[in-house]
Amino acid sequence: MSAATESFFRSRWVEPPAGVEELDPARLAPGFRAAGVACGLKAGGGTDLGIVVCEGDEVSSSMLLTRNAAAAAPIRVCREQCNAGLLRAAVVNSGNANAATGEQGYSDALAMRDGAASALGLEPETVAVAETGVIGVPLDIESVRNGIESAAAALLETGGEDFAAAICTTDRWPKRCTVSLDGVTVSAQAKGAGMMEPGFATLLGFVQTDAVVPDPEGALRAATAASFERISVDGQMSTNDMLMLQATGASGRELPAGLLEAIMVQLALEVVADGEGATRVGRVDVAGAATAEEAERVARSIANSPLVKTALFGRDPNWGRIAQAAGMALAGEELDELGPAEIDAEDLSSEAPEAELSVALGRGDSAWHMYFSDLTYDYVKLNAEYTT
Amino acid sequence: MSAATESFFRSRWVEPPAGVEELDPARLAPGFRAAGVACGLKAGGGTDLGIVVCEGDEVSSSMLLTRNAAAAAPIRVCREQCNAGLLRAAVVNSGNANAATGEQGYSDALAMRDGAASALGLEPETVAVAETGVIGVPLDIESVRNGIESAAAALLETGGEDFAAAICTTDRWPKRCTVSLDGVTVSAQAKGAGMMEPGFATLLGFVQTDAVVPDPEGALRAATAASFERISVDGQMSTNDMLMLQATGASGRELPAGLLEAIMVQLALEVVADGEGATRVGRVDVAGAATAEEAERVARSIANSPLVKTALFGRDPNWGRIAQAAGMALAGEELDELGPAEIDAEDLSSEAPEAELSVALGRGDSAWHMYFSDLTYDYVKLNAEYTT
Repeated sequence: MSAATESFFRSRWVEPPAGVEELDPARLAPGFRAAGVACGLKAGGGTDLGIVVCEGDEVSSSMLLTRNAAAAAPIRVCREQCNAGLLRAAVVNSGNANAATGEQGYSDALAMRDGAASALGLEPETVAVAETGVIGVPLDIESVRNGIESAAAALLETGGEDFAAAICTTDRWPKRCTVSLDGVTVSAQAKGAGMMEPGFATLLGFVQTDAVVPDPEGALRAATAASFERISVDGQMSTNDMLMLQATGASGRELPAGLLEAIMVQLALEVVADGEGATRVGRVDVAGAATAEEAERVARSIANSPLVKTALFGRDPNWGRIAQAAGMALAGEELDELGPAEIDAEDLSSEAPEAELSVALGRGDSAWHMYFSDLTYDYVKLNAEYTT
Repeated sequence: MSAATESFFRSRWVEPPAGVEELDPARLAPGFRAAGVACGLKAGGGTDLGIVVCEGDEVSSSMLLTRNAAAAAPIRVCREQCNAGLLRAAVVNSGNANAATGEQGYSDALAMRDGAASALGLEPETVAVAETGVIGVPLDIESVRNGIESAAAALLETGGEDFAAAICTTDRWPKRCTVSLDGVTVSAQAKGAGMMEPGFATLLGFVQTDAVVPDPEGALRAATAASFERISVDGQMSTNDMLMLQATGASGRELPAGLLEAIMVQLALEVVADGEGATRVGRVDVAGAATAEEAERVARSIANSPLVKTALFGRDPNWGRIAQAAGMALAGEELDELGPAEIDAEDLSSEAPEAELSVALGRGDSAWHMYFSDLTYDYVKLNAEYTT
């Protein structure tokens, strides 16, 4: 799934609305500019500071932040010091998560946000701040300040690629798109990799559109529930998850039905496919649960089982491990025995990069599905041999 | 931790009662006999069928069974057809878990139990049955019947080693001991490896003693709460977990305080140390929690984090990953930021096979601890390259 020349909507599990056109992902939705520059946070000099900004002041927005109780400084600044409904811009760095950095970290995140607001000529509370990278290391705020000046001077309507690069950490490829349909354009950028079972946002994700979005929070929550809330790389909720939607309304048209969801599901699948060490993506469909909550609990148990994840890697159609994980999720309850009649695991043995599993619990009419990556030697290598 | 010549009580986290004497683990507690034979379930002809029996009819016993809702046939037989308080014997096979095997599996487990009762001349409900190995494969009941005949004819007072070998699967070394103190003898055998975060028992564990145990269920539950309920190899609750205590009372003395717990904690640590692919054992101590449940939730989140487990493997004192896992366990709550002042992760970088982590949450006075193995290349290899 890594070839940049492929269609953006390349997963068999995503069906974009009919007639959607894919544009150059460097070109943002009309009314937005972005930039990505190298400011020295990443060893090796990679692009590590990005800004995305809405040019006009007619913007409606929303933002979802991690529920991790050890949330990073930028999450706390967003929660306490930003107007989520009126966000004009976001400033982002990779290479340092500014998490578990105490009071100094909070004031650094605030200084970063205020520096961007000043450079862009915006009210501070209309600028969001996001950071990703190593935890527990003080932020080099001087480098960040210099990066902000450079990025603010480099903003382009075609800055989408540079911005997408600036938010990546251990990602193997950028996750971004620009699509249009029915007179509306949407551009989006995300990053993922590890520490990835979002509470209600992925590590970092940004969506820009010229559509009219009357309820940006409702729209973002609904699309997130179908996408970033249904993925797991390693079952770990990050300290820095953030997802943001900005809409100018300049097109005068509403978002075509299903478009935001299709974009976000594809981006979420890119994050899973590019999970640390991942070689394959699995989808598990749980049906016949007594409640939707039960279906989700069983699906998460299967998706996070290291035994199922190694079976996905090893192409082993091992339905016994799926039965075990389902039974663990329902511990203490009575469950009819699960066997090959109720569990379809054959796809695990296919050569395809995407594999689909299904479980029929026979307890009711509720269903749920989610996406997950495999557990590989490279996951161990990435996390045992390098400090992240 | 694999040298059979070492002391049984070899973990730095186990302090056996003063004066305890370690005996030959082949020799069972007085009044018990056991055997282990090869009946053909294990490819390669390894020992795979065991029987342990109390010679006299003065026995009090208790049994703890997995809470996994997809419990295997032998668990269902034990639950429905055995008298947990009056167990004279257990018959066990390795090589096949007889799990997810439907009605045939249930009747096979029952036939195995009844066959052992008949061979031993015991009432069927006084014989427990346990099985461990591959899930979802029909049991070769004829081989099991032959094995029962051979084992029943081979029962010895010195059969502890053979019995311990008969219950092993991917274990790299047997886990067993015979110890005496204050005129009481206790022998015990356990096995572990993968699919290991017991609900309230390890995969398989057996304890025999000539002590007077007035409340065997209370005694077993208390010792299990301090041992097998505090370990995780891969966070996976098995379909076949079972733990059993038999006491004859023939010594006329009660169990010395702390002895059963010390034995079971050491056995549980052996199971962790011999977890699939494991090279190191970690202990995490969580203090300052608002409630004991909260302390346990945080400890389990840390112990099961693949990021912490790979850091244990890689000897990376990465306290940021511990902060993240703690924050994930407390998602949605307010938590003071956790940093090096609250988290001690230095031991991760030591050369020792046992590493100790601690976290002070600063939310109250409750504490909890648990033990876990590291996540290694060999864990992936064992579970990706072989069907288990």
